[in-house]
Amino acid sequence: MQRSLFQWPRRTWDQQGGKYMESSCGSVLWFTGLSGSGKTTTAQHLYKLLKAEGRSVELLDGDELRTAICRGLGFSREDRLENIRRIAYVANLLSKHGVTVLVSAITPYREMREYLRKHVAGYVEIYVKCPLSVCEARDVKGLYAKARRQEIRMFTGISDSYEEPEQADIVIDTVHQTVQDNVLHITEKINDINHLAFSGGKLGLAREQAAVGKADKIGKTDKADKGTRGATGSAAGVGRLPGGDR
Amino acid sequence: MQRSLFQWPRRTWDQQGGKYMESSCGSVLWFTGLSGSGKTTTAQHLYKLLKAEGRSVELLDGDELRTAICRGLGFSREDRLENIRRIAYVANLLSKHGVTVLVSAITPYREMREYLRKHVAGYVEIYVKCPLSVCEARDVKGLYAKARRQEIRMFTGISDSYEEPEQADIVIDTVHQTVQDNVLHITEKINDINHLAFSGGKLGLAREQAAVGKADKIGKTDKADKGTRGATGSAAGVGRLPGGDR
Repeated sequence: MQRSLFQWPRRTWDQQGGKYMESSCGSVLWFTGLSGSGKTTTAQHLYKLLKAEGRSVELLDGDELRTAICRGLGFSREDRLENIRRIAYVANLLSKHGVTVLVSAITPYREMREYLRKHVAGYVEIYVKCPLSVCEARDVKGLYAKARRQEIRMFTGISDSYEEPEQADIVIDTVHQTVQDNVLHITEKINDINHLAFSGGKLGLAREQAAVGKADKIGKTDKADKGTRGATGSAAGVGRLPGGDR
Repeated sequence: MQRSLFQWPRRTWDQQGGKYMESSCGSVLWFTGLSGSGKTTTAQHLYKLLKAEGRSVELLDGDELRTAICRGLGFSREDRLENIRRIAYVANLLSKHGVTVLVSAITPYREMREYLRKHVAGYVEIYVKCPLSVCEARDVKGLYAKARRQEIRMFTGISDSYEEPEQADIVIDTVHQTVQDNVLHITEKINDINHLAFSGGKLGLAREQAAVGKADKIGKTDKADKGTRGATGSAAGVGRLPGGDR
């Protein structure tokens, strides 16, 4: 299978024309990492950037999807796999219609990510790297404390494993880099390989923000961005499952 | 809430301009009816017509969705409701990005359809009317026979109720009308109210097919169209649940 990183805009080889053609399909940028690592925060920043560019873009948040299409699934290995398969199904449906899809979900097992690489068209794996100790110190949702007190069981990093990605397309560091730096890194990384411009204006803006160094680290922006979380239209209009994705 | 029938292309009132503006959102055409009534067959014909017009269109089939995002749900009232809520969630996501969504799902309870009318943007309810006796005589999938032998329980029409729609936007008759007639009826019905052209060419084709009277009744076309059923991209690539939607 062709490496997905070359697919933003995805390209297919036109046999007759003897050149690459832009595909009308979108890409699926999948953020994997521990709870509190900064997946959603980074995805939200990238979402805004792509949106401002006029792209058709959707942010699928693991927590929201748990409520919307995965009610009843628990946190056993099999249930977690099913959870990821369903998100993949929805991501594929959107991508098929030209939507760039950002997914923020822990996706803790290697098996899941192998599944995604195989079944999700235009899959780009972004590992949001952050040590457990830092995630736990941030503990934005207070879940690590609960997990330590065993009020939550099967919590990734504490009582369930996170198998570190070994072949992520992009790795970002949310401890030493700002959100702006990371978003810039993602866009550049894709562009470098793609040899296709991410398009002038907004990339310039990303560079500018990174240069100014508005040091938005995860803990801070997570709170500041709370209001923008519902980027995905919620049909059910119901609340989050207590604890959400874990 | 504004009647959804006026929303294809959906229109929103532009206060400043003092006129209706076309919305970039798609509509959700929801086919409800008994198993074997002709929901999927009709939806497939309409799908092809819209596709040929260059529209971004998706067909969500109740059977396929049962496997893709509803595995584990049964046929109790609560599970059936959850099933419909999930399809609605996916339909909304697609519609939000300008996709015209056709849904083929039994949707047996009034409560469900009230939910949809309230929560699905651009919802158009199409009641695929066909007497139980005719559906049972067709029995394309052999499910009615199984239900009569009680090998399948909680089967709509036999051992679970189908509450006839009382406020469907469009009603089609699959006993006395051909598929072509019905598709034409749907497009005309929407256009009549919308006062917006469904656009020349393909509507002409639909008229022509209806006039020629290629008498494709449901039993026949259901079989003939088997190969085109997988209009929805299946991420999981897994088979149908035995029995599917019921």
